Amino acid sequence: MFYFIGLGLGDAKDITVKGLEIVKGAKRVYLEAYTSILTDGKEKLEEFYGREVILADRDMVEQQSDELFQDADEEDVAFLVVGDPFGATTHSDLVLRAQQKGLQYKVIHNASILNAAGCCGLQLYSFGEVISIVFWTDTWKPDSYYERIAANCKRGLHTLCLLDIKVKEQSIENLMKGRQIYEPPRYMTVSQAACQLLEIAERKRNAGEIPAFTENTICVGLSRVGAEDQRIASGTLKELSQTDLGNPLHSLVIAGHMHPLEIDMLREFAVNPTTFNTFSEDQKVK
Amino acid sequence: MFYFIGLGLGDAKDITVKGLEIVKGAKRVYLEAYTSILTDGKEKLEEFYGREVILADRDMVEQQSDELFQDADEEDVAFLVVGDPFGATTHSDLVLRAQQKGLQYKVIHNASILNAAGCCGLQLYSFGEVISIVFWTDTWKPDSYYERIAANCKRGLHTLCLLDIKVKEQSIENLMKGRQIYEPPRYMTVSQAACQLLEIAERKRNAGEIPAFTENTICVGLSRVGAEDQRIASGTLKELSQTDLGNPLHSLVIAGHMHPLEIDMLREFAVNPTTFNTFSEDQKVK
Repeated sequence: MFYFIGLGLGDAKDITVKGLEIVKGAKRVYLEAYTSILTDGKEKLEEFYGREVILADRDMVEQQSDELFQDADEEDVAFLVVGDPFGATTHSDLVLRAQQKGLQYKVIHNASILNAAGCCGLQLYSFGEVISIVFWTDTWKPDSYYERIAANCKRGLHTLCLLDIKVKEQSIENLMKGRQIYEPPRYMTVSQAACQLLEIAERKRNAGEIPAFTENTICVGLSRVGAEDQRIASGTLKELSQTDLGNPLHSLVIAGHMHPLEIDMLREFAVNPTTFNTFSEDQKVK
Repeated sequence: MFYFIGLGLGDAKDITVKGLEIVKGAKRVYLEAYTSILTDGKEKLEEFYGREVILADRDMVEQQSDELFQDADEEDVAFLVVGDPFGATTHSDLVLRAQQKGLQYKVIHNASILNAAGCCGLQLYSFGEVISIVFWTDTWKPDSYYERIAANCKRGLHTLCLLDIKVKEQSIENLMKGRQIYEPPRYMTVSQAACQLLEIAERKRNAGEIPAFTENTICVGLSRVGAEDQRIASGTLKELSQTDLGNPLHSLVIAGHMHPLEIDMLREFAVNPTTFNTFSEDQKVK
């Protein structure tokens, strides 16, 4: 059996009891290590499981699935994914390849940022489509996700923004010279994402449009959700562009219309209660 | 400390290792027992935890939170919620009451149907707003959620429909006579939900509108997600109205536009591969 096992969002102990039993009994244990991170790394997981953990990078998962699947028709193989196996990162392609090989698979679900984001107090019922914000470069500053945020805002829905992760990237020089040297991993912060959104709002204004959000739109910054040192900060987009939420991973929520209960919850996390009270009033459900 | 602990979706072993440690060490353990169910009931949970579990019904949670919070400033109290504490069911109101009392709280997240629904192969990125479908009565057949489904469909997004649960309900006779006699719990099935949706589509057609979905729209029925006997069935809305997915809980997804990979995944669960191939073509992303 090939098991997709969600690890949840915090540390080693966020695996489920069922998931841990499977890991302990599996022939091989892989950790998908390119789309998210826990606060615990490979070594801590190995210590907690009492098992060797094999890091599976994107190449291995996408190109060398035969290695992952080896003997999984006769033995148990565990494939660990931070969050939920079908949460923010989807492994449907791997499921299909397993099925094509006639392999059986099972999924052990866990928390994903897609549902854990509810801890800020915004109701998950009132979220629209999720979007991803990618790192801009000097010459490439895409804003195609703006339309989806705008569509959510128009319906009064909140937007969860997943923030970019760059792992195992090569510099152009190293890439051209074929050197297997990788840059340090980069994780987009709430502040960086908020700065991009402010620039996009400015672009829209310069183009004569009324932007779907402004510097005064109430947003929520989340960092390390589910971990001991998780942080939640609510405030205007401008305020969040100036707020340091510490170590990764970060996520950002753009609030739509808010019920009084949602406003009461968010107020607990306000970086500035005065501006929060002023501007949250504009987004209150009429 | 007052702990909100998600139990996940399947059985007792879907609690996280961290959650289990807290349950074992807590002074009192409550189980929120009116918005969802596990395949294991109170007795099995007690056996697995080695602890007494106190059922908390809606009255207790909404009216008698003082009892829940008692001594939580000095001792650990665990409040167990099926799924994630801030998933399909939100406990923001309880969080706010804890805060008003100056109590500290922590959340132990877990899988919720909101992310576990991804197991059917539809990408969670492409879901719009979640909706709830309630039981109709002979005289009350609301369809206000239709507009939200239509808004999702218009944007090509999938719609997760949470299906009604009726627990601890009184008949009108018992209610009027003040008798504390409750009806057996009722859980809406995929088939029942699909029948309602078909009737709503018919209403729209009779009103001269083009409905957002028809009897040929590809949908997915899910039952007991995360449990050993979980079932997934894809097919047209009409087919799902005639499909029995067994024991509760059920959920229904109305597919929007689908990528070829999503169609490949759903095909594995098709109740009728021929009609699936015909009608999924109409919803394929162009």
